[in-house]
Amino acid sequence: MTDPSTAFVPGHVTGFFSPCPADDPARAGSRGAGLTLTDGVRVTVREAADADDGPLITLDGDPLSMPPVEAVLGGLDVSDRARVVAESDLPLGTGFGVSGAMALGTALAANDRFGCERSVNDLVTLAHCAEVEAGTGLGDVVAQARGGVPIRLDPGAPGHGRLDGVPAARRVEYLTFGDLSTAEVLAGDTDPLVSAGAEALDRLVDRPTLPTLVAASRRFARDAGLLTDRVCEVVDAVTAADGEASMVMLGETVFALDLGLSDAGFDADACRTCDAGAHLVD
Amino acid sequence: MTDPSTAFVPGHVTGFFSPCPADDPARAGSRGAGLTLTDGVRVTVREAADADDGPLITLDGDPLSMPPVEAVLGGLDVSDRARVVAESDLPLGTGFGVSGAMALGTALAANDRFGCERSVNDLVTLAHCAEVEAGTGLGDVVAQARGGVPIRLDPGAPGHGRLDGVPAARRVEYLTFGDLSTAEVLAGDTDPLVSAGAEALDRLVDRPTLPTLVAASRRFARDAGLLTDRVCEVVDAVTAADGEASMVMLGETVFALDLGLSDAGFDADACRTCDAGAHLVD
Repeated sequence: MTDPSTAFVPGHVTGFFSPCPADDPARAGSRGAGLTLTDGVRVTVREAADADDGPLITLDGDPLSMPPVEAVLGGLDVSDRARVVAESDLPLGTGFGVSGAMALGTALAANDRFGCERSVNDLVTLAHCAEVEAGTGLGDVVAQARGGVPIRLDPGAPGHGRLDGVPAARRVEYLTFGDLSTAEVLAGDTDPLVSAGAEALDRLVDRPTLPTLVAASRRFARDAGLLTDRVCEVVDAVTAADGEASMVMLGETVFALDLGLSDAGFDADACRTCDAGAHLVD
Repeated sequence: MTDPSTAFVPGHVTGFFSPCPADDPARAGSRGAGLTLTDGVRVTVREAADADDGPLITLDGDPLSMPPVEAVLGGLDVSDRARVVAESDLPLGTGFGVSGAMALGTALAANDRFGCERSVNDLVTLAHCAEVEAGTGLGDVVAQARGGVPIRLDPGAPGHGRLDGVPAARRVEYLTFGDLSTAEVLAGDTDPLVSAGAEALDRLVDRPTLPTLVAASRRFARDAGLLTDRVCEVVDAVTAADGEASMVMLGETVFALDLGLSDAGFDADACRTCDAGAHLVD
């Protein structure tokens, strides 16, 4: 058996977004913006020795079911041969795009391991569609494939969506209280998201800087009615200490630029914006 | 005065290409494919103290005139205030995209230093158009902005061009004999380039892997009549040692995957494909 293949996929925190549903999952997605993070997910795909060779997917050692990952393996026609072992710096379900990272990392690593000979755009499309169809994310995969500070101008996979970016590299801090269900929020009234998200995007396109991104995100979170009390308190405390912070979409999580959370007295995790998009590693 | 800003831009070796001229430089460029490299150019932009504060542009300590860089500074309206200091791992004029790297690095660093508030796509467009209008390159800037192993499906700046990629990360070796003039080659009969480039692109799109890229590049170099005797000898020696190598477009330079040149007995420089596109650094 040849060696396993491993991909690294950056985490991604969305600051604001407008959901853009469509019948074709390659055209569905979201407009919005966020930060990709050097904290991310390493996904290793190996060949199974036989049908009893361990669980199909593990995350930090625990077996789990993850429909987008299963769909990616099916799309590459390697479901019966592959085993996916993921290790994450980030908690699942708290807005860091871990499910998107696992889908995209699986696509890259499985393509490499099994010689599927797909292009990057094909693999990103496969992972994006798997996420959209599972209802676990709308814009993480295309952002994670790009790296940096992605602006999602138009929704969808490569060939449909349109990306730009904020030219910036910065320390990022984050503090997580718990999870919010993407599926539940999207099942509710999304009209406030759509209008607040469009306003935020206009602001950022007009002035594509990190401070604008965070300020637009803060207003979006308030206008869209997504701020929880705990998140609101922390964001206000960072702002009072002259820092820049907002809420992660969708998790009960605060992100801040530079030393924003530390300076306000919180014990936060720290990383940086990720210069590289998802990629294979040795 | 605030601190200078620095950007890193990966080197880029094109394996094959078809020139695609157009009146609008944002639509002009080339189709083709190549590798971005961890060996690249660091471009620092600082504010000049006064009009006599040193040369406008230096590369590895030497003052030089570089029209694409000057055009980028003009486009950002900072020509009178900026000084550009570049340091390169790579020789100029030998096919590594150093001029494109300097234009793109200047765009990113000057935007950051002087608070121009442009988006990534705007800055890439500015640098791409400056390169095309100066006649120093056609596809390096968009490839260097992306990173990885870019396939240029359609020519032009963001919003016009269309990119895909080979999902791969690999050691790359290179050996340089001297320079070839991009402007001179493009001023000659480009029909053989166009047809050989289109064939090579079809082959790579059909099977987007690194070995295909190098094999398609080798055939392109022969069919387009660009191989020099020295380059031909080295490529044949690498192939004879079961390695994969081709000629860099446009320089009298050979690139090889993995230990291709070393295994064939050559004293080559080594780096890797670059996971990240051009980005600001601390």
